[in-house]
Amino acid sequence: MKNRLYFKSLDIKVQKKAFESIVKECGNIGYYALPEQDVEPLLAYARMIPEHIKNIAVIGIGGSSLGAKAVYEFIKPRKTLSRELCFFESTDPISIHAMLDTLDLALTHFIVISKSGTTVETFAIYKYLLTLQSDINHYTFITDPGSPLEQYAKAVQGKVVYLPCNVGGRFSVLSSVGLLPLALCGIDIHSLLEGANFIRESFFEKGYILDVLLKKAAFYAKNHSQYHINCIFAYSETLTYFCQWYVQLWGESLGKRQLHSAFHVGLTPIGLIGPKDQHSFLQLITEGTRDKSITFIKIEDFEEENLTIPDLVLPHLETLNCLNGLSFNALINLQCDSTIEALEAQGDIPLDCIMISKADEYQMGSLIYYYELLASLVGKLIDVNAYDQPGVEAGKSILKQKLQCRR
Amino acid sequence: MKNRLYFKSLDIKVQKKAFESIVKECGNIGYYALPEQDVEPLLAYARMIPEHIKNIAVIGIGGSSLGAKAVYEFIKPRKTLSRELCFFESTDPISIHAMLDTLDLALTHFIVISKSGTTVETFAIYKYLLTLQSDINHYTFITDPGSPLEQYAKAVQGKVVYLPCNVGGRFSVLSSVGLLPLALCGIDIHSLLEGANFIRESFFEKGYILDVLLKKAAFYAKNHSQYHINCIFAYSETLTYFCQWYVQLWGESLGKRQLHSAFHVGLTPIGLIGPKDQHSFLQLITEGTRDKSITFIKIEDFEEENLTIPDLVLPHLETLNCLNGLSFNALINLQCDSTIEALEAQGDIPLDCIMISKADEYQMGSLIYYYELLASLVGKLIDVNAYDQPGVEAGKSILKQKLQCRR
Repeated sequence: MKNRLYFKSLDIKVQKKAFESIVKECGNIGYYALPEQDVEPLLAYARMIPEHIKNIAVIGIGGSSLGAKAVYEFIKPRKTLSRELCFFESTDPISIHAMLDTLDLALTHFIVISKSGTTVETFAIYKYLLTLQSDINHYTFITDPGSPLEQYAKAVQGKVVYLPCNVGGRFSVLSSVGLLPLALCGIDIHSLLEGANFIRESFFEKGYILDVLLKKAAFYAKNHSQYHINCIFAYSETLTYFCQWYVQLWGESLGKRQLHSAFHVGLTPIGLIGPKDQHSFLQLITEGTRDKSITFIKIEDFEEENLTIPDLVLPHLETLNCLNGLSFNALINLQCDSTIEALEAQGDIPLDCIMISKADEYQMGSLIYYYELLASLVGKLIDVNAYDQPGVEAGKSILKQKLQCRR
Repeated sequence: MKNRLYFKSLDIKVQKKAFESIVKECGNIGYYALPEQDVEPLLAYARMIPEHIKNIAVIGIGGSSLGAKAVYEFIKPRKTLSRELCFFESTDPISIHAMLDTLDLALTHFIVISKSGTTVETFAIYKYLLTLQSDINHYTFITDPGSPLEQYAKAVQGKVVYLPCNVGGRFSVLSSVGLLPLALCGIDIHSLLEGANFIRESFFEKGYILDVLLKKAAFYAKNHSQYHINCIFAYSETLTYFCQWYVQLWGESLGKRQLHSAFHVGLTPIGLIGPKDQHSFLQLITEGTRDKSITFIKIEDFEEENLTIPDLVLPHLETLNCLNGLSFNALINLQCDSTIEALEAQGDIPLDCIMISKADEYQMGSLIYYYELLASLVGKLIDVNAYDQPGVEAGKSILKQKLQCRR
């Protein structure tokens, strides 16, 4: 991974302080160590799922689904996988119905994921599915040790896989939550963790990544009042769900009251896909209020050499001859470069560009861990706890009241 | 459609002025009259496409694809359609490849849409497809009269359908651009236009919709410096692509330099899907900076009566008994209500809720026209031209230079 910053960030003291506070919390916050974990037990578990199982269905929402989905949808179009993966992550009856229509329940293994063990959406769907597939061998439960879900699973002789300590939902993709469903589909989770570990080492051992991450975090924090919307502009459709994962990570980690003030602070994440969003959101970036930073993500080699625009001359459309002989791989990256140049010329829009060499598990692991570190760093510098989400509790307890009243 | 506002908007003078300026431009801006058009010629054209054609593939980007996609993805899970619709809207080689794998080209009719007739993405893909399917009868071209694409189509004896006058790309879903591909799949375009016309009449004939739209537009414009991010929070997965259409409409129409100043202004659109994004973006809304307004969209009747949470008691999970016997339709709407109540209690987040009775073409037509009118109104009140997009030209001309240099 290369990461070029188009802005300056000189405040070395702030950067040093941010790094030190990350080093300090390293022992308490579980996600930092995930790239080094031993995945053999998980892989051994995965091997126990019968070979005739063709579909893996995750029942989970938010942090329990977004990470695995980001990785799966990135890899799937490029690799022949051993099983298909799908996600029950909504109570929308239309989408539950549509998803069930695509599944043969005899060939499906369900992974029920709930950290707390009481997520309403997850159990509404699980209860419904039990009426269709009552054999408990078709289910695996992932939860925290001691949760009501663990107790339930033990009571019904269900299979339980645990979450490691102190790993929050939105930081859990590199734990069992993401790794088990991915491994079951034939995604190379070793390589995913190696990519993450490359970033981890480069950060903690004071390599290149430390430098860019500190500069970027310090810039975002310092300019948080002006540039409070942070866009990812990813030039590949296959990064659509990575953007959704980023939106949760960024929004839920950084949208908070400050720890030492009564201020509401926050940085608003937006995920864009190029070139599509050149025809949608780009106008607002170029001419709208100066409140957005943009991070471009570019894939150097799509490994699709044969997809090339033919040498065709169409009458009256000769201006488009300049496309002839170009590969789509080259075209999409020229589009990205052109957009960067156009925005750079504006002079007051903070830009950077992350380039990954190709689209595989290793590079995806790097991207994930890069963004997790960035969220932690910015959290420190804007004085919030990046690991809780107290703001979602009120809605949950109102729902519980409404549900009780109904009975 | 019902639309309840949770905020006050009392500036009657501003509202009156906005209405008058819309009435004044009605003759020049083409989209206002679209709900009244005669669609018989389009339907007659659609009937000429051979019955054995099973797939309709739109080659278009931005305003040429987002509208039809929003309607199609909303209706598809609920209705048996006569053909499948897909969209080539990216130069990503991986997604082009993946889409081609799903199509039998002998059974596919392509609709090439480009208003200007020179869109780079569209013609890169079109040229490539010509090498796979060279029979010109498998293509329809939608463009402006007099465009290079029209001239090309005539030269090769291709079929041309025109865009009506003065209808911009992002306002074109109710023109041939959206209606032809939708009609070819068996979507009821009469009903779509009737729904839009209901809003049109209620607005121009000074009914209920005029009142809420004016109040909303005046509030957004007046508070544009504080609440400059406008979120839609739609409680159905099937509104995902409607949100993407909204993002283009809102961002590209309102992100501009002011007509009578040098200021950059703009309102930033964000599309959220409930309940999923309760577990992602909601924390930022609740506790983050007070810069967001939220519009909830709720579907009263999903017409999925049979999808009900069974009366199951699970050991150790008795707290979830409160879900038993509830339909998913009721659950998702209770989740929406709970989120509204929780945010209302914050006291400083502007909210409103749009309720549609069910999920059909008529209601989708209403939603589309409602948002088009709202964008026009807010455009007037923040002093921008809502119908151009000068900010995207720089990137296009840099790309052209790069392409020329290459040769």
